[in-house]
Amino acid sequence: MKTIEKIIPYEQLLAFTIAIFKKIGCPEEDANTAALALLSADLRGIDSHGVARLAGYVRLQEAGRANTRPQIRVIHETPSTAVVDGDSGLGLVVAPFAMQVAIQKAAQVGTGWVSVRNSNHFGIAGYHALQAVEKEMIGIAMTNASALVAPTFSLERLLGTNPICVAVPAGEEPPFVADLATTTAANGKLEILQRKSEEAPPGWIQDSKGQPSTNPHELKNGGALLPLGGDRDHGSHKGYALGAVVDIFSAVLSGANYGPWVPPFPAYVPMPTGMPGKGIGHFFGAMRVDAFRPAEEFKLHMDKWIRRFRSATPVPGQQSVLIPGDPEREMEAERRVKGIPLLPAVVNDLEGLAEKFGVTPLSLRPEK
Amino acid sequence: MKTIEKIIPYEQLLAFTIAIFKKIGCPEEDANTAALALLSADLRGIDSHGVARLAGYVRLQEAGRANTRPQIRVIHETPSTAVVDGDSGLGLVVAPFAMQVAIQKAAQVGTGWVSVRNSNHFGIAGYHALQAVEKEMIGIAMTNASALVAPTFSLERLLGTNPICVAVPAGEEPPFVADLATTTAANGKLEILQRKSEEAPPGWIQDSKGQPSTNPHELKNGGALLPLGGDRDHGSHKGYALGAVVDIFSAVLSGANYGPWVPPFPAYVPMPTGMPGKGIGHFFGAMRVDAFRPAEEFKLHMDKWIRRFRSATPVPGQQSVLIPGDPEREMEAERRVKGIPLLPAVVNDLEGLAEKFGVTPLSLRPEK
Repeated sequence: MKTIEKIIPYEQLLAFTIAIFKKIGCPEEDANTAALALLSADLRGIDSHGVARLAGYVRLQEAGRANTRPQIRVIHETPSTAVVDGDSGLGLVVAPFAMQVAIQKAAQVGTGWVSVRNSNHFGIAGYHALQAVEKEMIGIAMTNASALVAPTFSLERLLGTNPICVAVPAGEEPPFVADLATTTAANGKLEILQRKSEEAPPGWIQDSKGQPSTNPHELKNGGALLPLGGDRDHGSHKGYALGAVVDIFSAVLSGANYGPWVPPFPAYVPMPTGMPGKGIGHFFGAMRVDAFRPAEEFKLHMDKWIRRFRSATPVPGQQSVLIPGDPEREMEAERRVKGIPLLPAVVNDLEGLAEKFGVTPLSLRPEK
Repeated sequence: MKTIEKIIPYEQLLAFTIAIFKKIGCPEEDANTAALALLSADLRGIDSHGVARLAGYVRLQEAGRANTRPQIRVIHETPSTAVVDGDSGLGLVVAPFAMQVAIQKAAQVGTGWVSVRNSNHFGIAGYHALQAVEKEMIGIAMTNASALVAPTFSLERLLGTNPICVAVPAGEEPPFVADLATTTAANGKLEILQRKSEEAPPGWIQDSKGQPSTNPHELKNGGALLPLGGDRDHGSHKGYALGAVVDIFSAVLSGANYGPWVPPFPAYVPMPTGMPGKGIGHFFGAMRVDAFRPAEEFKLHMDKWIRRFRSATPVPGQQSVLIPGDPEREMEAERRVKGIPLLPAVVNDLEGLAEKFGVTPLSLRPEK
C-alpha cells in the first residue's frame, strides 16, 4: 500500500480545524482552544492523536456524546484541589480549563490538583502539562480512556492506554517532558504497523485467548494491548499498576467512569452498560518550582541534570542518550516550519468535512 | 548452596532491631520509628530491604555517613509544600517525619507535597505511603538511590531503581498499593537469582559493553539494570522517564544529589566526586480523598473498582487477576503470625551485631 503524504502548513491546518470546530457549535474561543490542543499532537509527531481524529470528534458531537456548548464547572474544591465537571464537553476544551484551575491553585498555595469528570478525549497529555511549564511550574496530566489493555493475567480488557505526562521546566535547556502511555506500545504504533503490514514485536499484544501475538490487527479480534513490561517476568504488573493509578486519579476521585466502563472514542461503538460515573476522567497537577526552592537554583540544577544525562556515554553503535521530550520538540520545530504531513486517508476525511460543512477545503486555502 | 532459613517471631525481631538502633545512638523514639519502617519490608516479603540491611545501616553510621541524632527541619514551605532537610539522618527516621508533614498539610489545604534532601535510604516506599491511607488520604512515596540503572541507549549507570508507591484507601476492601521499582526487576530479584545460581530473563540487565545479558552477577562486572520495558522496542524509554521523574522530584526539587551522584548504600563504596547536593532525596505526597469528593462515595467506588478487577476473567491456565498490594498484604498477614524467615547469612550478621553491641542475641530471646 502506497502512502503518499500531503504536507499542509501548520497555520493553514489550524484555521481549517478552528472552522470545523465552530461549525459543530463551539464558540470562537473554544474552537481556538480545541484546535490548538488537537494540532499540538500533529506538531509533536503523535499523528494518531491529532487532526486524524477531527472527524471522530465531529461524529461524537453528532451522536450527542460531546457537547460543544458545555457549562464547565468546579463542583468541589479546597485550597489545593478541585473537581471539575466538563458537562460532556470536548476534552480538548475541558482539559485546558481544568489545567488553568490547577495552575491558579498552585499560584495561591504552591500546588494545584484537579480531577475531572464528564469529559471526552483530550488529545495528548503533553500539551496540557506544558501549560504549567510556561508559569515555572511542573505540570502533570493524565487521562483514562476506553478499555484496550488487559491487566496482568487478565483475558479481559479493563484499562485504557492511560497516559501520564510530567513536564518540568529547566533554565537554558528545553523542558523535560515525559509523556507515556502505560502500555508497552501505544495504539498509534499498532496503527503504523497495520498500514505497513508489519508484525508487532512480542510483548505488545495478546490474542483473544490471552496468548502472545504479533498480529497488529489482534485488537479487532478480541485481543488486547499489554501493560508496560509486556509479561509478568518483565514487569507487566508495574505497567498495570501505573495504568490503574491513572484510572483511579482520573475517575474514582472525580466521579467519571473507570475500568471497562469508560466511553469509547468511536461514536459507532455502543456505550458500556451499567456505567458508574459520568464521561471520561482526567487528572491534572501543577507544582510551583519555587514552592520548593528558589526558581533560579532549581533551573540551574535541572540544566545540570539534563546535560549530564544527554552527555552520557552511549552503548557502542547506539544513538546518544535522549532527554524525555527531545524527539517531540525536534519534530515540532521542524513541522512548524515545513508543515504537517498527512496521510491520504486523513486528507480525504478532512476534504469530506469541508464539503459537508461548507468550509474552504485545505486544497483551496492559501498557504499562509 | 543450601539455604536453611530460620524463622524469627516478628516481635522478637522488632525488639532486637530497636536495641541495635539505640546502640548506634538513636533516641528511643527514633529507634522505634526506624525499626518499624525497616521491618515492614520483612513483613511484606521484600526481604532485600528489611533486617538484612541492618548491618549496612550500622556501617553507614560508623562511617560517619548517617547521623543518628539528626536535627530534621522544614527549610522551606508553602501551604501545600515543604522541603525537609534530614541532617544526614537515617532515611528510616527522616521519611516518617516528612510524610507527617505532607499529611498535616493535606489536612489543612487538601494535599501536601514534601521533597527531602540530606537523607539516607528509607526502606520500602510502601510503608511511608501507607501512613496516609490510615488518615483517609492517598499516599505517595518515592526515593532516588545510587546509580545502578542505564537509561535507554546509555552505557553508563545514571539512575537508581527509583521506586514509586501510590497507596489508595478503599472501603470494605483493603487498600490499593502500587509499589514498584522503575526497572524491569528490582535488585532484590537479582540477589535471589544469584543465591539460586539461576539466570535472569532477558531484558533485566546489560553487561559492561551495553549488550543484553542474563548473568545476575553482571552488576559487579560493570553491567547495569535496565529501565522498566527492557529495551527501546518494549518501552524502556518509559521506564527511564519514570525513574528520571523520581530523581527530579526527590532531588532537583529538594537540593539532594541526583543521577550518578547519589551516595551509595554500602559504606565501603567511595562517595561520588563533585556531588551537587546533600545526601539522598525523597518525595512524598498526601491527598485527602474528601478534598475531591465525599469519602464514603469515594470508598464505594474504590471498592467497586477493586472488585471488578479482581473478578476479571483470567487467561486460561493463569492465576486470577491481582490488585496491586495483594501479595504483600497476604505475606504480612502470614508473617505476623508465623514469623519472619531469615537466611543463614542474615542470622549470622545479626548475631554478629548482638555480640558487638552486647545486645541479647536472637537465639537467646524469648519468643514473645
